[in-house]
Amino acid sequence: MKTDYKAMAGQKPTFCSDYMAGAHPKVMEALNETNLMNTAGYGTDPISETARNRIREAVSAPEAEIFFLAGGTQTNATVITALLQPYQGVLSSVEGHISVHEAGAIEHNGHKVLPLPCERGKITAESVRRYCEHYRGDEAWDHIVMPGLVYVTHPTEYGTLYSRSEMEELRKVCDDFGLKLYLDGARLAYGLASSENDLTLPDIARLCDAFYIGGTKCGALFGEAVVFPKPGTVPHFFMITKLMGALLAKGRIPGVMFDALFTDGLYESLGKAAVEASQRIQDVLEEKGYELLFRSPTNQIFVIMEDGTFKKMLEKIDFEYWDKYDESRTVVRFVTSWSTTEEDVAALLNIL
Amino acid sequence: MKTDYKAMAGQKPTFCSDYMAGAHPKVMEALNETNLMNTAGYGTDPISETARNRIREAVSAPEAEIFFLAGGTQTNATVITALLQPYQGVLSSVEGHISVHEAGAIEHNGHKVLPLPCERGKITAESVRRYCEHYRGDEAWDHIVMPGLVYVTHPTEYGTLYSRSEMEELRKVCDDFGLKLYLDGARLAYGLASSENDLTLPDIARLCDAFYIGGTKCGALFGEAVVFPKPGTVPHFFMITKLMGALLAKGRIPGVMFDALFTDGLYESLGKAAVEASQRIQDVLEEKGYELLFRSPTNQIFVIMEDGTFKKMLEKIDFEYWDKYDESRTVVRFVTSWSTTEEDVAALLNIL
Amino acid sequence: MKTDYKAMAGQKPTFCSDYMAGAHPKVMEALNETNLMNTAGYGTDPISETARNRIREAVSAPEAEIFFLAGGTQTNATVITALLQPYQGVLSSVEGHISVHEAGAIEHNGHKVLPLPCERGKITAESVRRYCEHYRGDEAWDHIVMPGLVYVTHPTEYGTLYSRSEMEELRKVCDDFGLKLYLDGARLAYGLASSENDLTLPDIARLCDAFYIGGTKCGALFGEAVVFPKPGTVPHFFMITKLMGALLAKGRIPGVMFDALFTDGLYESLGKAAVEASQRIQDVLEEKGYELLFRSPTNQIFVIMEDGTFKKMLEKIDFEYWDKYDESRTVVRFVTSWSTTEEDVAALLNIL
Amino acid sequence: MKTDYKAMAGQKPTFCSDYMAGAHPKVMEALNETNLMNTAGYGTDPISETARNRIREAVSAPEAEIFFLAGGTQTNATVITALLQPYQGVLSSVEGHISVHEAGAIEHNGHKVLPLPCERGKITAESVRRYCEHYRGDEAWDHIVMPGLVYVTHPTEYGTLYSRSEMEELRKVCDDFGLKLYLDGARLAYGLASSENDLTLPDIARLCDAFYIGGTKCGALFGEAVVFPKPGTVPHFFMITKLMGALLAKGRIPGVMFDALFTDGLYESLGKAAVEASQRIQDVLEEKGYELLFRSPTNQIFVIMEDGTFKKMLEKIDFEYWDKYDESRTVVRFVTSWSTTEEDVAALLNIL
Repeated sequence: MKTDYKAMAGQKPTFCSDYMAGAHPKVMEALNETNLMNTAGYGTDPISETARNRIREAVSAPEAEIFFLAGGTQTNATVITALLQPYQGVLSSVEGHISVHEAGAIEHNGHKVLPLPCERGKITAESVRRYCEHYRGDEAWDHIVMPGLVYVTHPTEYGTLYSRSEMEELRKVCDDFGLKLYLDGARLAYGLASSENDLTLPDIARLCDAFYIGGTKCGALFGEAVVFPKPGTVPHFFMITKLMGALLAKGRIPGVMFDALFTDGLYESLGKAAVEASQRIQDVLEEKGYELLFRSPTNQIFVIMEDGTFKKMLEKIDFEYWDKYDESRTVVRFVTSWSTTEEDVAALLNIL
Repeated sequence: MKTDYKAMAGQKPTFCSDYMAGAHPKVMEALNETNLMNTAGYGTDPISETARNRIREAVSAPEAEIFFLAGGTQTNATVITALLQPYQGVLSSVEGHISVHEAGAIEHNGHKVLPLPCERGKITAESVRRYCEHYRGDEAWDHIVMPGLVYVTHPTEYGTLYSRSEMEELRKVCDDFGLKLYLDGARLAYGLASSENDLTLPDIARLCDAFYIGGTKCGALFGEAVVFPKPGTVPHFFMITKLMGALLAKGRIPGVMFDALFTDGLYESLGKAAVEASQRIQDVLEEKGYELLFRSPTNQIFVIMEDGTFKKMLEKIDFEYWDKYDESRTVVRFVTSWSTTEEDVAALLNIL
Repeated sequence: MKTDYKAMAGQKPTFCSDYMAGAHPKVMEALNETNLMNTAGYGTDPISETARNRIREAVSAPEAEIFFLAGGTQTNATVITALLQPYQGVLSSVEGHISVHEAGAIEHNGHKVLPLPCERGKITAESVRRYCEHYRGDEAWDHIVMPGLVYVTHPTEYGTLYSRSEMEELRKVCDDFGLKLYLDGARLAYGLASSENDLTLPDIARLCDAFYIGGTKCGALFGEAVVFPKPGTVPHFFMITKLMGALLAKGRIPGVMFDALFTDGLYESLGKAAVEASQRIQDVLEEKGYELLFRSPTNQIFVIMEDGTFKKMLEKIDFEYWDKYDESRTVVRFVTSWSTTEEDVAALLNIL
Repeated sequence: MKTDYKAMAGQKPTFCSDYMAGAHPKVMEALNETNLMNTAGYGTDPISETARNRIREAVSAPEAEIFFLAGGTQTNATVITALLQPYQGVLSSVEGHISVHEAGAIEHNGHKVLPLPCERGKITAESVRRYCEHYRGDEAWDHIVMPGLVYVTHPTEYGTLYSRSEMEELRKVCDDFGLKLYLDGARLAYGLASSENDLTLPDIARLCDAFYIGGTKCGALFGEAVVFPKPGTVPHFFMITKLMGALLAKGRIPGVMFDALFTDGLYESLGKAAVEASQRIQDVLEEKGYELLFRSPTNQIFVIMEDGTFKKMLEKIDFEYWDKYDESRTVVRFVTSWSTTEEDVAALLNIL
């Protein structure tokens, strides 16, 4: 007997994260339309190639090599392993996703995550430079893990954004020390859509050796698009995805979804709706005297809240504990997404 | 501008493999129906739990631990790594998928694949016993990789099937030598649906320490259901999936698909249609004097064909080269699937 | 033509480290005496067993399992890999040898080093407790590396010592959180010989799941003795040493050396001479107004020195740069060892 | 109380292996002579450099990069890992040491050992060619492990030898398919000393990308000299040895030993004595009607022996079981070495 899905829907509006719903309706439409087509496997089909071409155009890198993987941790582990020599480590914010929240996936593949200090998720070119200079200056340098790559997230785990000039400085320090630069764009749609953002897709492609355009959190059922702007950056990356268990037999499926996401500007437009909702909510939070941890330019909102308020609010709205702030207060997080509705926002604003 | 998908459809009926089309219509229906629901991530949602319960019932293991992963190589690498001690290897048919066609994914995770001789993809309890006795008898045994697990595919890479008694013998030899037993069911639907099969899902759950029920090749967009019939078989398997990059943030998606596949017997019935088509095709091949490599009980057909015939037939139908047979002949493979239509079969029969 | 080794000897007294000379004369004597004996390989010979028995007695653990490995990094990587589950990490001082100076050997074997704050190389039970409580309290704990082991060095990289009660507290917190405790005794002889030390070998064996007694820095040509006080702590450790490349074919050689080191109290007595030299040097340094970074209880001395003094002193004595202290001053390190002679000490004191 | 080593000496002459005794007397002499010298660590001392220069001269590769590691399995794992890309495997005889007797050390480091058929331990250029052609021809090649390196042993595990022309053919096929060539010379002294050998050290250096000159089985207490004839073959190999746990702090020790081994032709002369003993023993075995598995050109002798004869002979002489030959017969192995004495040989010949 068929499952009664309706009965399983959450009863409260949710601001827990941006991977709570399925796919954007236009993405589902493309999946439905192509569903019974027969095409070759492993991403060698014409729809995946169309999607890759759309992305090449969007990032202004006509020769970019593009691969569709399933999820973020998998993508980070696969790309970082592919970009590093076996004896190298990856520099990351101490609060970076790969440093904290991927259960040791980078280390499982043999590489150390070298932590850098960060402010609201962002590292600086200066801290990379200091690390590398110390590394080079150390007499015992051959006993220390050699940095080979800088990892940044954009937006960061705190929803903050790198400016174009900050990224250019990071590129500069990477060039100075022979490092590669890799950008994790799990939530990239929400970054691109922010009015504070001045870092475009072509900028990212120009400045990074590799980056990924997030699908899972940005409107797809799953899937991340790995982009190597310069061809030949990683020889045999296809084979590497296979041995990492990251190659999908039905490679077409993410291809179809990214084709839809990069048709008629959907990717940026779905981000825009979410960021606008986030800004509206923050406006009201500020008006009502809530204390923001900081004003977030994207779809993640961090609020310092009395523990009692937090608990009471949870009865009506789903959102998440982030961290203890002090004895009596908690940092909580609200996340909007492409699937956040007017009704959701209204319900939230109503109880503030 | 929207992509014209129709123009991209293959022009010829295809028998290349069972991962050419999207998902079974009933699976797509469930995805569409649930698409805008908001539920918790990482497989902790109620739909995934419903799917797990349906599988627990189908395999008669009410306490089974079940996890949904994305693809076959990922699943094999994750489960085998989880079941083995770091110093153990996995016994597999020398032609087993993990031995040949996974680009070294098992070795990437630190384990040797110990090859056993096979006949049409099948290994025997006797060959496992011989290996283990030699291993134990060897004076230098501590310098040799200790076998920790037996890996079988059902159906095998040749579409052949283990009988229940063969699996019971494998279980017996595993018990005798302290080995675990793991069954790769990438094409399990086509095995369960074969009239020659006497190995039921409950049998598999009773005899194996772990197995997976294939989704990618059996009607899902992607996804494999890992089943540990006895709870506690692998502590912290959830964490292991995370560090292997195999944990999906939108864990609900494969949950929905397996819920549909295990509703009203869909999983077995979609296999049945494919196997019936395969049998009909083999009947006609035999009638017309083609030489089968052997009569296949499932959805993969192997034919020894003159090179010229092969090339000519390829002009009208898509199917695959398997191996050179001799100077002038080739072994080719035809695969039927849940998406094979009456028209496809008619087109193939028409040119035989 | 034979090499003229004499011509290659350093011209200056050296205080660079404790691995500059060969083996203690009594160790060489044992190697010479046994040199042409034929015995079985891989540590299965009777001399190695005698050495193991001497160590079992010295640590008061009559059933201890003991293995001789070649060097410190190898030993740490092998023991830590053997003690951890594949999904676990190891807690270490942020300045711990495994965290900084082993070129990523732990990560190469798949495990994250989880850094704890330290003071002069020492961590506290309290910091372990805080880490574990935070880890457990985090809602997303399954995405974070699970700590499985606490790693300490004794003496530490700064020559400091854990007291017995500090180690008992560490054992307590390990028990509370299901962690193992491992002590790296690369310089253990110099710790045991310190008048400030109250942690005996039997204490270490009682409190730790594993530890190693350093040979390389403490009088052997090479070699570390791994001790698992409780038998069965790591099944198949012999096999693990083999696959880690840590099993010596001529396992007898370190066996002979540890037999000599644990005969008639040689191990502690050679440490004593070095620590006494270190104390004498520190006395004079203090008298002459040099600024010690802290008074060291063992064989490593850290002095804050004007850059000019440092350079000038280097002309007459070999010792090492440790770190920049400020604009004009450097922290330098003097190390005494079993091979430090009266003449070496006199030469150093002479130029202070 | 000092151990009575004499009482621990084996009572029977031994032909078990070539790692039963300590070091050649001239090697011990050098260790004794240099013992109390103070020199820099990690192989940066002048004696190690002298040893490297002696080897550079012996192999006619004045720019060769040379590193001293501790043992054979460690050396194979380190060099092979360093030479391969992460997605590549190593072609080896199915009976090769890395394939069978290293407990999965290569796989532990992430690489598959790709087995080739062999005859008495030797592979052929032709079998490498067939493997590579099949690999390239396979449509699904990206799912198969790419071969990156050919591994040979010289002498092989059966004591057999590659001729210069066979090695030139292997080099040729490696060049044709972009493979590297690596020679494991664990018993190289016994190969170089064989009258059947026409492969010189300069030949090996000219034909191989890397090789190692065995010390452990050829007169050293331990130690293998890794030679990369062309500089730059492996960037940062020093760092790789560190992260593999293969870097010795007292790097001078193997340096001293290899210095002695490559002084005045010691390395070849100690091999010659062992091979002559082996030939004399084989002459007598043949005279007395024993059945050799084949006539061995080096220091390993394989005899097919009645089980009863084997057991009886074991009462007087130590040697090893190799394999069952048939119901009533066993293949046994006698190994001579630099430490085999006239008395040992006489005792063996006496009981034949």
